[in-house]
Amino acid sequence: MTEQVIIAVDAMGGDRGPETVFAGITQALNADPALTVIVCGDKALVEPYCASQERAEACPTTEVIAMDEHPATAVRKKKDSSIVVGCRLVREGRAQGFFSAGSTGACLAAATLVMGRLKGVKRPALAQVLPAYEHPVLLLDVGANADCKPEYLVQFARMGCAYMQGVMGVAHPSVGLLNIGEEDTKGSMEVQEAHKLLRAELPEFKGNAEGRDLLSGGFDVIVTDGFTGNVCLKTIEGTSKTLFSYVKDALKSSVVTSLGALLIKGKLAVMKDKLSPDAYGGTPLLGVKGACIIGHGSSNERAVANGIAVAAETVRSSVAQVIASSVEDSAASAPNAASSETSQVGDQH
Amino acid sequence: MTEQVIIAVDAMGGDRGPETVFAGITQALNADPALTVIVCGDKALVEPYCASQERAEACPTTEVIAMDEHPATAVRKKKDSSIVVGCRLVREGRAQGFFSAGSTGACLAAATLVMGRLKGVKRPALAQVLPAYEHPVLLLDVGANADCKPEYLVQFARMGCAYMQGVMGVAHPSVGLLNIGEEDTKGSMEVQEAHKLLRAELPEFKGNAEGRDLLSGGFDVIVTDGFTGNVCLKTIEGTSKTLFSYVKDALKSSVVTSLGALLIKGKLAVMKDKLSPDAYGGTPLLGVKGACIIGHGSSNERAVANGIAVAAETVRSSVAQVIASSVEDSAASAPNAASSETSQVGDQH
Repeated sequence: MTEQVIIAVDAMGGDRGPETVFAGITQALNADPALTVIVCGDKALVEPYCASQERAEACPTTEVIAMDEHPATAVRKKKDSSIVVGCRLVREGRAQGFFSAGSTGACLAAATLVMGRLKGVKRPALAQVLPAYEHPVLLLDVGANADCKPEYLVQFARMGCAYMQGVMGVAHPSVGLLNIGEEDTKGSMEVQEAHKLLRAELPEFKGNAEGRDLLSGGFDVIVTDGFTGNVCLKTIEGTSKTLFSYVKDALKSSVVTSLGALLIKGKLAVMKDKLSPDAYGGTPLLGVKGACIIGHGSSNERAVANGIAVAAETVRSSVAQVIASSVEDSAASAPNAASSETSQVGDQH
Repeated sequence: MTEQVIIAVDAMGGDRGPETVFAGITQALNADPALTVIVCGDKALVEPYCASQERAEACPTTEVIAMDEHPATAVRKKKDSSIVVGCRLVREGRAQGFFSAGSTGACLAAATLVMGRLKGVKRPALAQVLPAYEHPVLLLDVGANADCKPEYLVQFARMGCAYMQGVMGVAHPSVGLLNIGEEDTKGSMEVQEAHKLLRAELPEFKGNAEGRDLLSGGFDVIVTDGFTGNVCLKTIEGTSKTLFSYVKDALKSSVVTSLGALLIKGKLAVMKDKLSPDAYGGTPLLGVKGACIIGHGSSNERAVANGIAVAAETVRSSVAQVIASSVEDSAASAPNAASSETSQVGDQH
C-alpha cells in the first residue's frame, strides 16, 4: 500500500495565480489517492476550494511574499505569509513536505530558517533536474550558495545521490564535478581542492564534468557552486530559447519551409515538452528537515501537479533521512569536518 | 588603400591537417590582396605550398606541439615548434599577427611567454564571439584564467570593448558582468567587488548580465572569470548539440515528419551555419603584444580563412594599441592599480 503523505502547498505562489495552483492540486490529488494537501493562502480563496475538494485542508494566511521582495527580510517580517506558514506546518509535523511556485529566494530562506537544516548539513542546496539526452541529470547547487567551500561540494554530491536514488530511481548514481577540463589539475584552486576531497571521500565520484556534459548524460549528478550552477542553468535556458527563435525564423522564411513546419509541428511540440522544466516538477531544496520543492514562477497546472507529486515522492523515499545518515557517516569518519557552522541564508529570488 | 599586413600561420595546427590550413590560407589571400602570410611548419609541406602561392612565405620548423601535451611545458621545451616560431615572428616584428588552429593552451602559453603581455595588462584573456540572436556578443575570459581577481575583470572589459570596436565595428559597446541576478548585491563576493569596480571605472558598464543574456544580445561585451566563461561556452555548445539531436530524432520519427524535414533541410543548414563558431574565425587572445587568433581544433577551410582575416583586421584596427592606451589611462588615474604582477600562464588545452 502506498504510504499516506501530507504536503503543504502555497496557493499564492506563481505568476498564473491561485486558480492554476488549485487546478494543479486537483490533478495531483486525482493521481495519488494516498495524498492529502494543506492549502496555505488567502482565506477567501482557499476555503471555497478546499470545501469542494476531498483530501484538501484549508490553512488561511494573511500575508503574501511578492517575487521582488528581499527574501530573507520578507521571511523574517511576514510570519503569516503562505510560504512561511507552509514551512512551519512541516516543522510542526503537520505536513511532511512543502511545494511553492513563489519566490525561490523566499522559499529557500523560509525552508532553511523555519524547517531548519538537517544535522550536519553545512549548506542546503538547490538542485535542478536537467532534461539531458539519454537520461536526466541533477545539477546542484543552482543558486542557494554563491560562495562555496570545497567541502560543501562533497555534501552536495551526497545529497544529490540521495535524491537521484530516491526520487529518480537511479540505483547507482555517478557524480561529476563541473570543471573546465577532464584532468585532475584543471580549474580554479577551490575546484581543484573539491576534486581531491571528492576523490578521497566519495566512491560515486567519476571525475570532472564539462559544460557539455550537463545535457549529454555522462553523469547522474553534477556538483558545482551556486554561482556557476545558476549561470549554467540560465545559459541552458537562454540557448534553448535562442535556438528555437532561429528555428522559427527558418521555418517561416518561405512557403516550402512553412509547409515543412506544418508537417513537423506536432513532433516539435513533443520535443519542447520533453525539454520543459515542468516535466520534473520544480527544484528540490536539499539538506532541510522535510521535503521542499520550488516550482518555476511560470508553473502551469501540470508543473504544479508534478511539483506536488515530487514532494510526495521525496517524502516516501526518505530523501531527508538518507541525506542525514550519509552526512552523519561522513562526519563520523572525518571528525574535523563535523564542526558546526553558522548558516547563511542566500538571498536569491 | 588597405594597409599591408603580415600574418604568421601555424600549418601544423588543427585536426584536419595541413592541407585544410593551406586551403584556408589560399582563400584568405584571395580575399585580401594586401595580406601576406608566413607559413610555419614541416619543411616538406610548407615549401611546396608556398612555392605555388603568391604572398606566402615558408618558415620551416622541426617540431609540433600535440593537442594533448601540457601547454606551458611544451612551449618551453619545443622552441622550434610551429606555434612557438609563429609567435616569435610576431615578437621580432616579421609578422604582426598569428593564427593557429592548434592547442589553445599552447597558443595561449606561447603568445603570453613569447609575444609578451602589453604593458599594464595583468592577464591576457581569451575572448569568444557568440552568435547571439540580434548581434554578436563577446564573452571573456573563456579559459585563460581560472582564478580571477576583480580588477582583472575591469581590464577584460576594456580589452573586450577595444576588440568589438575595432574588429566587429560596434561604435559604443555596452559591457555586462556575468552574474546570477540583476541587482548590484548579487553574486559571489569577488563578483560583487568586480561590480563596484566596473561601476566606478567604466562608463560602458551597464550592469549585471545573466546566463540567458549570452545569446540574447542585451550586451556587446560580457566579462567573467575564465572558469565560469569556459563552463558557459561548453554549456552553450552542449545545449545546441543536444537540441539538434532532439530535433533530428523528431524529424526522423515518421514519414510525414521526414517529408517536413526534407522541406526545411536547407534552411536548417543555413541556421546551423550562422550558429557555427567558424563564422567568427576563432578566439582572439587579448592583452598580448600583437594579434593572436586561435581557431577551433576542428577548423575547416572557411574557419581558417576567417581566422586569418580576423587576425589581419585586429592588426589593421590597432586593437593592441587601443588596449595598451586604455589600460595605461586607467593605470594613470588609479596609481595603485598599476603595480606590476607576475604573469601566470594558464595550462588550458
